[in-house]
Amino acid sequence: MDPRITLITLGVRDLAGARAFYEALGFGTPLAPDGEVAFFQAGPMVFGLWTDLGGHGAPGIELAHNVGSPEEVDTVLAEAVAAGGTLRRPAERMDWGGYSGAFADPEGYVWEVAHNPSWPLGTDGSVTLPGR
Amino acid sequence: MDPRITLITLGVRDLAGARAFYEALGFGTPLAPDGEVAFFQAGPMVFGLWTDLGGHGAPGIELAHNVGSPEEVDTVLAEAVAAGGTLRRPAERMDWGGYSGAFADPEGYVWEVAHNPSWPLGTDGSVTLPGR
Repeated sequence: MDPRITLITLGVRDLAGARAFYEALGFGTPLAPDGEVAFFQAGPMVFGLWTDLGGHGAPGIELAHNVGSPEEVDTVLAEAVAAGGTLRRPAERMDWGGYSGAFADPEGYVWEVAHNPSWPLGTDGSVTLPGR
Repeated sequence: MDPRITLITLGVRDLAGARAFYEALGFGTPLAPDGEVAFFQAGPMVFGLWTDLGGHGAPGIELAHNVGSPEEVDTVLAEAVAAGGTLRRPAERMDWGGYSGAFADPEGYVWEVAHNPSWPLGTDGSVTLPGR
């Protein structure tokens, strides 16, 4: 696994309030495909707010590692288990069009490993929201 | 405030175990100045593990925004309060040689705002650990 984080998502109760705060702070207009999530471009990574976090064990925060293909998702999940992590969600096709699974580190922090064909990855590992 | 995250720190109970996991996963050898913290270079940002997190209200995770001068720390903290955040720790000189304060967003997530003269900032907002 390359040592990088492509997405940090915070679980929120009041999405409109949290979104308004980060917009006022200078994070710009987020990509907000529905009423449950907002994704801000944050330099080479993405910063997300989501009302539905916790579905697979994340305590309020989830890290994500985006990769370039579905096969790499499987590879990274296997590496995480081999390193002593725990598989939290086997990789599967997602309704948002990608392929994703999740592991927990020894402390219980959850990392999603995802291939999202709509979020282009740079050769430096940066990720860019569509249309940015 | 520029829309970027320069450091994400996870609070851990077993630093040696968590460090060994991330080393095995490919994050390389961390900067570990004492037995309480380990900082991994993660592309343009830093990923930290710390046994002492929570001292000013972080629930297990803390985000950080590094800036180029002590004056910018004060400016960003004021911006955060103006945007609806809460000052959690007024900025002060730190024993590690920098200047730092912290705010909480409306959901209670804590951001440290710091000037660390030992962690060079790039013009693109990336941060590099000393000696990397």
